[in-house]
Amino acid sequence: MSTLSNQQYRLAARPVGNPKHSDWNFTTEEVRDITDGEIIVQTIYISLDPAMRGWMNEGKSYIRPVAINEVMRAGGIGKVIASKSPKFAVGDYVSGGTGVQQYWVGAADDKTAGFYKVSPKLAPLPKFMNALGMPGMTAYFGLLDVGQPKAGETVVVSGAAGAVGQTVGQVAKQKGCRVVGIAGGKDKCDFVVKELGFDACIDYKSGSVKDGLKEHCPNGVDIYFDNVGGDILDTVLTRINLKARIIICGAISQYNNTTPVKGPANYLSLLVNRARMEGIVVFDYAARYGEAVAEMGKWMAEGKFQTREDIVKGIETFPDTLMMLFEGKNFGKLILQVGEE
Amino acid sequence: MSTLSNQQYRLAARPVGNPKHSDWNFTTEEVRDITDGEIIVQTIYISLDPAMRGWMNEGKSYIRPVAINEVMRAGGIGKVIASKSPKFAVGDYVSGGTGVQQYWVGAADDKTAGFYKVSPKLAPLPKFMNALGMPGMTAYFGLLDVGQPKAGETVVVSGAAGAVGQTVGQVAKQKGCRVVGIAGGKDKCDFVVKELGFDACIDYKSGSVKDGLKEHCPNGVDIYFDNVGGDILDTVLTRINLKARIIICGAISQYNNTTPVKGPANYLSLLVNRARMEGIVVFDYAARYGEAVAEMGKWMAEGKFQTREDIVKGIETFPDTLMMLFEGKNFGKLILQVGEE
Repeated sequence: MSTLSNQQYRLAARPVGNPKHSDWNFTTEEVRDITDGEIIVQTIYISLDPAMRGWMNEGKSYIRPVAINEVMRAGGIGKVIASKSPKFAVGDYVSGGTGVQQYWVGAADDKTAGFYKVSPKLAPLPKFMNALGMPGMTAYFGLLDVGQPKAGETVVVSGAAGAVGQTVGQVAKQKGCRVVGIAGGKDKCDFVVKELGFDACIDYKSGSVKDGLKEHCPNGVDIYFDNVGGDILDTVLTRINLKARIIICGAISQYNNTTPVKGPANYLSLLVNRARMEGIVVFDYAARYGEAVAEMGKWMAEGKFQTREDIVKGIETFPDTLMMLFEGKNFGKLILQVGEE
Repeated sequence: MSTLSNQQYRLAARPVGNPKHSDWNFTTEEVRDITDGEIIVQTIYISLDPAMRGWMNEGKSYIRPVAINEVMRAGGIGKVIASKSPKFAVGDYVSGGTGVQQYWVGAADDKTAGFYKVSPKLAPLPKFMNALGMPGMTAYFGLLDVGQPKAGETVVVSGAAGAVGQTVGQVAKQKGCRVVGIAGGKDKCDFVVKELGFDACIDYKSGSVKDGLKEHCPNGVDIYFDNVGGDILDTVLTRINLKARIIICGAISQYNNTTPVKGPANYLSLLVNRARMEGIVVFDYAARYGEAVAEMGKWMAEGKFQTREDIVKGIETFPDTLMMLFEGKNFGKLILQVGEE
């Protein structure tokens, strides 16, 4: 094989506030030859997720931080272009921890990368980064396992047009709940109501979330799936019902803070309402991903469930494309395309 | 019966910050004659509890606010001194919502007061305001039902020497847990360790709670029973284990705030640790109080369980005595004695 040149984004510095261009090194290295048991994956799609911001910080979390000068961690989908492993053949499409780079090289059974096959015959590859990937698994198990929705209950989800929010709302509808989204802008709100079938959507950029909740949740809020934190979490806390469940999935409004995180000042609503706030990390459900894929795949096949992706091309756009998440500029699951299928 | 003069504390104004003398009216009225089905209760002990501060505020909560000019709501124990009801006889001791006054007059089956008999032969009457009363029920069901402790787990409780804290710690010890209290001052810490059998106690007034948790919870915190909120809650959140349970029982550090409540800035630790924060209101467990009294009563009889009360005499001291709670000056369950047994 002729020598391949691998463009990569490496973490240059731990960001203070928003990640800046100077927090990245855009490097190039040659792809090395592989030995027995190894493969080369050519990355096609890279998943850009809010959680990546957390991985850039120092300190204990549910996963170790990305080291300085390490290739940025990311989930990706790619094509196997060389293999000395019986596990994958050249031409297979795989999903796993490719990182932000054009080629991944290593053992086919590398635990950290965790590659598994995906088939473009079952669904377009980007769907495997959305409802059929980590965001979908997060939404499905967070809502169903932590939230325990019952038919007739009211479910509110923030980041409603985002990767996790789309799936939360559609799964909740399938389970017979009233679903109210919170999103930024008329286009996103129209999308989740008209395309995804949410009952209503509150545009936090054009009006009061409090008024919107009063209007669209006349029976209060039984489940709140929180992707944003900050003021929106605090506002929803004033409208929860007895025995409400608040699923803490993320807090994108707080990730680039240079001041301390804003804690929910209305948390004593949990006491008054005997309510529960609980965190979810998707990896805990790895053994059960199959259940989720089966059920959501069935709904997709029946035309009852859809997802939207926002695909930006070019690895060189990575620093700016990542920022779209924190500026609320992506419309649907944000994906960076760095190669052709 | 000769005319009885009834001294009462009525809410004069909704306090801003700490309740001031001018927020109360100290009034006197004659006790009226009773009609069929009614009783007169002479109050002996009045329970002073942090929750009373919340009842003085306007706004929706788990119970309606005390109205301006209404006798202040409080739990009390008294003696029936007149009865035209078959439910109670003169000489019976009863526990219920007496309010902050010397005499309660009304229907024996008044639902708001909810009087039931207590016997000084079973336990000294003040114990019925402590482990065998609302604080004990709160502690017992909050710890066991919401916290679900398992033998070997580490339980941390704030307000450890207070009414709820004493019972939380002792119940947790009975269930085989390691128990670490947080309290203000050496005397309180010595008491919960030496008298109540806690494994350790952190004196938040003389040292760092963070360092104390590191030292005394080498395996992290599995359950945190929070009575105080504020900085202590935030510090404990940095030390919780996977699947930890945080029971929100109160937030005494925040009740007299004139600024907004300090929300827990470290609440995303719930996400990282897949942990749960859940509120408890004791009234939900009314149908099960008997279970708690039976089990704790047995431990008391076996000499494995004890409680401490801090009894202050004189109804006229009520405004100042109540403030002891918020200044951390009470040592044990705070009780106002306004009559003789």
